Amino acid sequence: MEHEPLLMIPGPVPMPQRVRAAMTQQAINHRGDEFGAVYADCVRVLKALFGTENELYILSGSGTAAMEAAVANFGGGRKIVSLVNGKFGDRLREIGERYGSVTPLASAWGAPLDLDGLERELSKGAEVVTMVQNETSSGIKNPAPEVAEIAQRHGALFIMDGITSIGGDVVKADRWGVDVAVVGSQKCLAAPAGLSAISISGKAWEMLADNRPFYLDLAAYRKSGKKDRMETPYTPAVPLFLALREACALIEEEGLERRIARHRRLADAVRAAARAWGVDLFPEIDDVHAYSNTVTAMRIPRGISDADLRGTVKKFGIEIAGGQEHLKGEIFRIGNMGAVGAPEILATLAAVQYTLRKHGFPAGDGVTAAAEVLG
Amino acid sequence: MEHEPLLMIPGPVPMPQRVRAAMTQQAINHRGDEFGAVYADCVRVLKALFGTENELYILSGSGTAAMEAAVANFGGGRKIVSLVNGKFGDRLREIGERYGSVTPLASAWGAPLDLDGLERELSKGAEVVTMVQNETSSGIKNPAPEVAEIAQRHGALFIMDGITSIGGDVVKADRWGVDVAVVGSQKCLAAPAGLSAISISGKAWEMLADNRPFYLDLAAYRKSGKKDRMETPYTPAVPLFLALREACALIEEEGLERRIARHRRLADAVRAAARAWGVDLFPEIDDVHAYSNTVTAMRIPRGISDADLRGTVKKFGIEIAGGQEHLKGEIFRIGNMGAVGAPEILATLAAVQYTLRKHGFPAGDGVTAAAEVLG
Repeated sequence: MEHEPLLMIPGPVPMPQRVRAAMTQQAINHRGDEFGAVYADCVRVLKALFGTENELYILSGSGTAAMEAAVANFGGGRKIVSLVNGKFGDRLREIGERYGSVTPLASAWGAPLDLDGLERELSKGAEVVTMVQNETSSGIKNPAPEVAEIAQRHGALFIMDGITSIGGDVVKADRWGVDVAVVGSQKCLAAPAGLSAISISGKAWEMLADNRPFYLDLAAYRKSGKKDRMETPYTPAVPLFLALREACALIEEEGLERRIARHRRLADAVRAAARAWGVDLFPEIDDVHAYSNTVTAMRIPRGISDADLRGTVKKFGIEIAGGQEHLKGEIFRIGNMGAVGAPEILATLAAVQYTLRKHGFPAGDGVTAAAEVLG
Repeated sequence: MEHEPLLMIPGPVPMPQRVRAAMTQQAINHRGDEFGAVYADCVRVLKALFGTENELYILSGSGTAAMEAAVANFGGGRKIVSLVNGKFGDRLREIGERYGSVTPLASAWGAPLDLDGLERELSKGAEVVTMVQNETSSGIKNPAPEVAEIAQRHGALFIMDGITSIGGDVVKADRWGVDVAVVGSQKCLAAPAGLSAISISGKAWEMLADNRPFYLDLAAYRKSGKKDRMETPYTPAVPLFLALREACALIEEEGLERRIARHRRLADAVRAAARAWGVDLFPEIDDVHAYSNTVTAMRIPRGISDADLRGTVKKFGIEIAGGQEHLKGEIFRIGNMGAVGAPEILATLAAVQYTLRKHGFPAGDGVTAAAEVLG
């Protein structure tokens, strides 16, 4: 029997058996009480993960669909400032340009965001700010509370992509002042790919755009979601909702604080391994709190190709991620999202360590360094 | 143990065990060979069901998402004629109005389409025609070959919603001249809800709109889908693809002609039951070929409420559909899509027959009439 693949990329991630088994249920009516209860259960747990009491709806579409829903519904026809320091920040910019008028504030991937520029653009009348909290393309975490404070001070709407942070890192949407936040199902929630969720503040609803797309028209989700029995406006991906409900139950059983602490410990272990190996983190920054809690990016040592590195690791049945766009061949990335724990991290680090040494890089004992963090 | 619900609505429909079991597979990389092969397998089978050799892509979104993709990408900024004789034709009109300039040609629900009006509008310069082939809201089938011929003669683009026909009724997109066709996963394919597919002719690509949505931008699907290894532009709903692949395998095993003949026989059985009961079909039409092959609509006999009718049937664990919009309380509908056969139809008809009699309607023996068709 072939071993199941071990996906240690920044999503999709391995799903617990309970989550997978939930999808085998026979088809149910998506306009009935049973589905309504499933939807409501998911919403209740997700609100806690978002740190919000705002309305929250689940979309049958990937995180990108939720990013578009956020920008199209609340940035449509408006002046948008897009903070960019990675692939997904840039995707928000690109979406913004289809619906509004965007001023991009681009830093190098992984470099700090241009907050002075943000102040300037907001003073000049920009009405909406977009930012990715956890930029998996570069392994860093952006300062959501600071950006929210700046946006609030200028009366601007703050749209935050929390696709790879929510459920694995601290998010306090209401306390910080995040008007619109989104998450994807296949990241820290450890549910299957195909769903996303979006929370929406009262201020955001006041800015609802006139020209909205149809499938992602949030006014339609609101109308259907506010019934006594929660419904979606169009047929939802029912098996994915059933799986997400089970993933949410597992999150409640673990407890959010413990879950976030687990993610942090796993990321710490990966970074400890990198230091012991003598492999550079990407980017190199002093503030450890600016590193992602859910993925670690490292430079591929000179003389090793991306194909050699990931190909050799894959021989152990383990998939890690390469770099994207201009970082292809420059970095590799290890995700620690969702339901994974010490066994998956140790196996991955052991495979990478073997690979580095096999390809001539004199790596130190990162596995032991990680074990000391995890033990 | 509670019995599984039997969904006899016009989708979602009961899924075969093999389809449901496929979703329990552990997460795989959606940028890898395994997923690429799954995607390509689905596309190959779906092309046969569509009757097309055009490009075909699968979207992680419901049939409505595919309707929007069709209209937004190929009707954006253009003059559209929307043929409407039911809820879903009207949805195409509504979507069209978000992207182009629509002339609706509305008939009563279930009444024949206004083909004279279509000729007139095309002569006046309309560039795009939208139509639903199988209008589940009113139980009828619209004349796709005739509409395609008219559109082609005027050089207009024909967008056909085949969401509830493809896989259960004859569709010959290329032979008829359908430029863009869409299907939903949870209808005649008997796969889970949450995916849709769209086929696109070369003429359609020439009319690609400049201002496209992002998640449903078909140029992005084309770019990712044309690689040696098929990919989707954004993270796909992987478990649903795995289930759809299994559903496609079941369709190949049955054979398309046999599958369509099965759907027709089941619909014939339901209509035979209606006649034996003395219940009016909705609408009453002379041409039996204008009735849907996949759903049957009937008038609720005077004196019985929708709640009584469907509520009593539901006590047997069977769900049938009511009417939508202005037909709520006026009609009820029995679907026969996907993988269902004689047992499900007989059970449903027996439950309805019992219900009609229990509520005072002197129904004849529809169950026997249906059995004679099915036996």
